[in-house]
Amino acid sequence: MNENTTSVNNLIDHLGRLPGVGRKSAERLAYHILRVSQGEALALADAIRNVRENVRYCKECFNFAESDLCSICSDSTRDDSILCVVEQPRDLMAIEQSGSYRGLYHVLLGRIAPLEGIGPDQLTIDALVERVRRGNFREIVMATNPNVEGDGSALYITNQLADFPVEVTRLARGITTGSVLEHANREILSDAIAGRQKL
Amino acid sequence: MNENTTSVNNLIDHLGRLPGVGRKSAERLAYHILRVSQGEALALADAIRNVRENVRYCKECFNFAESDLCSICSDSTRDDSILCVVEQPRDLMAIEQSGSYRGLYHVLLGRIAPLEGIGPDQLTIDALVERVRRGNFREIVMATNPNVEGDGSALYITNQLADFPVEVTRLARGITTGSVLEHANREILSDAIAGRQKL
Repeated sequence: MNENTTSVNNLIDHLGRLPGVGRKSAERLAYHILRVSQGEALALADAIRNVRENVRYCKECFNFAESDLCSICSDSTRDDSILCVVEQPRDLMAIEQSGSYRGLYHVLLGRIAPLEGIGPDQLTIDALVERVRRGNFREIVMATNPNVEGDGSALYITNQLADFPVEVTRLARGITTGSVLEHANREILSDAIAGRQKL
Repeated sequence: MNENTTSVNNLIDHLGRLPGVGRKSAERLAYHILRVSQGEALALADAIRNVRENVRYCKECFNFAESDLCSICSDSTRDDSILCVVEQPRDLMAIEQSGSYRGLYHVLLGRIAPLEGIGPDQLTIDALVERVRRGNFREIVMATNPNVEGDGSALYITNQLADFPVEVTRLARGITTGSVLEHANREILSDAIAGRQKL
């Protein structure tokens, strides 16, 4: 029943393992790769290979890096008195793209998720505590995801940091800019009211 | 503003050039590739490289092949008295997956699209005419897409084949199995009525 060549099927199989890529999408991507120039196709293959061969975790904050320290940790113009704790490098990236934060980061590489068997030991929490012990941070901003597991992780970490002379804060919660009030659910409105700010 | 490593950005750029993959999806895919095992990531890179190094067009029908002839043209159990003309290898694959056709194929590698500057010369129509001249085909089934360009291409080819003793047919059109009659548009219903079949 299968009239594709082995190479094409192999590529479709591998593309189909990517998140959000179903069988039909994988076929479409494979046909695209067969249609573009040889150079463009090989550049994609090389980009995948390079990223895996060159990229590691920053020794300090566990962001992606191409040397021991990531571009943020090795940037002396960043404010090293404030540390933002995120779950994943993509969260760090989102905050960087907002352009409103100039401090350092710590990437947990996950969140505490007992149901999936992920405990504090599998995250970079020990390294975070050690950084706080060693560093001269004034403030630690918890920027884990605003859900049960993210909040739980933030709470756990806050307890771990209780003995250090740092202020632990978390990202503000409330209604989102550009949204419609009547579509905000009860939790969002509760957060917004509890955190109301002076105009 | 960009805190990703060069390799990560390069990968995101290349993934973002794939059809249907926007910036956000490209980032998600890149982070996935960074998270999976080294082996899985490199297998994807190799699959892309292999497909471009090993896959060519079948000399006979222009389907994808890993040697001179594709798996269908080199399969002696196929019915070589009937030839199905499709636009792209993916169309061939869709027909194969239906399991209801055992003849040979001819892939046009496109359709006549004057607005995009694609004329008959850029397709494999000459090779098709030559195959029909040489072969002992009894029937040629036009399976181009049911739209203006696909129908136009089928008509053009039908004219090219007018002098040969073959029957030229096209795929049946009508209401689609599993669909709801009231949602079928006028063109679909016209096709279905014109092509009505004896029960």
